[in-house]
Amino acid sequence: MKKIEELKTIIVEKPLKLDCGKTISNFPLAYETYGKLNEKKNNAILAFHALTGDQFVTGKNPITNKSGWWSHLVGPGKAVDTNKFFVICANVIGGCIGSYGPNSIDPNTKKKYGTNFPIITINDMVNAQYNLLEYFKIDQLFSVMGGSMGGMQVLQFVANFPNKSKTAIPIACTASHSAQNIALNELGRQAIMADNNWNKGDYLEGENSPDKGLSVARMAAHITYLSKKGLQEKFGRKLQERDDLKFSFDADFQIESYLRHQGSAFVDRFDANSYLYITRAMDYFDLVKQYDGNLSNAFKDSKVKFFIISFTSDWLYPTSENKEIVIALNAAGANVGFIEIASDKGHDSFLLEVPEFLKSINNFLEANYINL
Amino acid sequence: MKKIEELKTIIVEKPLKLDCGKTISNFPLAYETYGKLNEKKNNAILAFHALTGDQFVTGKNPITNKSGWWSHLVGPGKAVDTNKFFVICANVIGGCIGSYGPNSIDPNTKKKYGTNFPIITINDMVNAQYNLLEYFKIDQLFSVMGGSMGGMQVLQFVANFPNKSKTAIPIACTASHSAQNIALNELGRQAIMADNNWNKGDYLEGENSPDKGLSVARMAAHITYLSKKGLQEKFGRKLQERDDLKFSFDADFQIESYLRHQGSAFVDRFDANSYLYITRAMDYFDLVKQYDGNLSNAFKDSKVKFFIISFTSDWLYPTSENKEIVIALNAAGANVGFIEIASDKGHDSFLLEVPEFLKSINNFLEANYINL
Repeated sequence: MKKIEELKTIIVEKPLKLDCGKTISNFPLAYETYGKLNEKKNNAILAFHALTGDQFVTGKNPITNKSGWWSHLVGPGKAVDTNKFFVICANVIGGCIGSYGPNSIDPNTKKKYGTNFPIITINDMVNAQYNLLEYFKIDQLFSVMGGSMGGMQVLQFVANFPNKSKTAIPIACTASHSAQNIALNELGRQAIMADNNWNKGDYLEGENSPDKGLSVARMAAHITYLSKKGLQEKFGRKLQERDDLKFSFDADFQIESYLRHQGSAFVDRFDANSYLYITRAMDYFDLVKQYDGNLSNAFKDSKVKFFIISFTSDWLYPTSENKEIVIALNAAGANVGFIEIASDKGHDSFLLEVPEFLKSINNFLEANYINL
Repeated sequence: MKKIEELKTIIVEKPLKLDCGKTISNFPLAYETYGKLNEKKNNAILAFHALTGDQFVTGKNPITNKSGWWSHLVGPGKAVDTNKFFVICANVIGGCIGSYGPNSIDPNTKKKYGTNFPIITINDMVNAQYNLLEYFKIDQLFSVMGGSMGGMQVLQFVANFPNKSKTAIPIACTASHSAQNIALNELGRQAIMADNNWNKGDYLEGENSPDKGLSVARMAAHITYLSKKGLQEKFGRKLQERDDLKFSFDADFQIESYLRHQGSAFVDRFDANSYLYITRAMDYFDLVKQYDGNLSNAFKDSKVKFFIISFTSDWLYPTSENKEIVIALNAAGANVGFIEIASDKGHDSFLLEVPEFLKSINNFLEANYINL
């Protein structure tokens, strides 16, 4: 992974008590911003990234040299128009792009924390990022938004800070991580831990890092981001640069070649220990349990205007799970809109140029922007 | 893996030309039988096993000391009544329970073939097993049946030998392996190959075998055998022998513990190279392409009575893919029955005690048995 010398970073001095019981302080939180904060400081949107995302929402990501993960959605004149809005995004704690994580140096040992880093939760991530409001002297955000794990952070943020955002857009997510999704994350973790180079988390990045295991974890996850139909339409049984089967274990099929590429490209930009910590945080996420089995209580007396979005072919965080959030919000008497968008692109839809998705978000933001 | 000294085995002397172009001969085919072949020799059922199955259909499996994989279905007085029928099942070639496979000793090198074993196909498996009819002097089988990869073998058998079975029961399968299923198999292969012990297929079983990689492959596959709903109902977010989360990477959740167990138990009974070869055979399976894009041609003029079975929650070989077989059979004017069975147990339903499944098979067999 390339090192970026000058990531925008705040040092959070204030102690933060984590769910695991440990307290951290003076920890770095790397962030990026797009657009300008207006004088009233009421045009800020806090975007939360997903499992393998980072703070580089749009424009060129200096680490990958590729476009940011929400480039289709966020930018000047785009659905989330940075001519109007000030978009903030931070790398989650536990991450590997500048925020406090298992890659950080433990001041006591002068070595990377590795698996000595404390287990963190979605709640911890959100509480850490709340410090950005103080840093930018923002009393209330215009919106909090995110897909997948980003959506979980949206829900947790609103539950923790009911008056700190005017609107909220949780996308393709859940209020409680399902058994299947825990299983899929555990599969990824076991793939990493099966790599001898993982060495219980004590490895030197790039030199002897568990690239093979991380690559397998990514391949597994990537399959779940796409729909069966989408895969069939895009790849089917198309062969990879050959006229016929080669009767070997080479990548005969395009889908095999594609998956291998997804795996090997991923290890250049992500850290295996961070993958363990962030998937663990997702598995631990259960907002229903946090509110004693009644999700509505998480949104009690909420003044936030919600817009929930799901995708028809998303089998990882299916419409049914997104609807449970809608039901809980309605039961709490909250202001909530919901749309299920038709897409064959699976869970990945929230990261892709799906016109109805972009338009829906734009409409929702613009309608509420008028009321600013 | 335990060694079984006395597996029932035939040596196929006759040369068999494989799809890859190589010809094999004098190769072992390990098999098991249940019930008695009647005098007319018209009560025999050839059962084909799935990816990780073997010849031990019912009763006690001498290798695992557990019940055979179709114990619910096959046995005296059971749906496939061995008081009436003579059930034969062979370990597929490429397998690791006595049939010719990557674990076999290459007479030239006196070492295991490993990845020098030729790539085999479903067609090769079926052609190899056809020799059992000659061995038992059976002119026509009463039925061919199997689920998953076993179902693919049923389809291939009927296509290759249109008059050699009176009936055919392909269960929870497909006529052409989908992109998603190729992707999932490739994931398993990559998990095995990522294990340093795999050593390009050259390992000593038990001593330095790629157990970790094979275990990860099994975990990945196992998730796909179960439905999201089934997993949620069985495991949900239940904790494993603890009152609260431990904030560690231990198996906090029952589903994690279950998966780890599935992985570690599997390596005791299966060989990593066989896993590579058999998944490859599945990926290569495309009966549609074999018949120039028209599946109906595979069943042209077929006198076989078909019974196709799918399960509602099977997302690996969904009803839609099973229905494509039904449509092709109807288009060929074949005699075909079809049932979609309601089950939350996913693809695994065909291996489980699903009453409607057992009853349907029993009804079909009994109705046709009367006509013997």
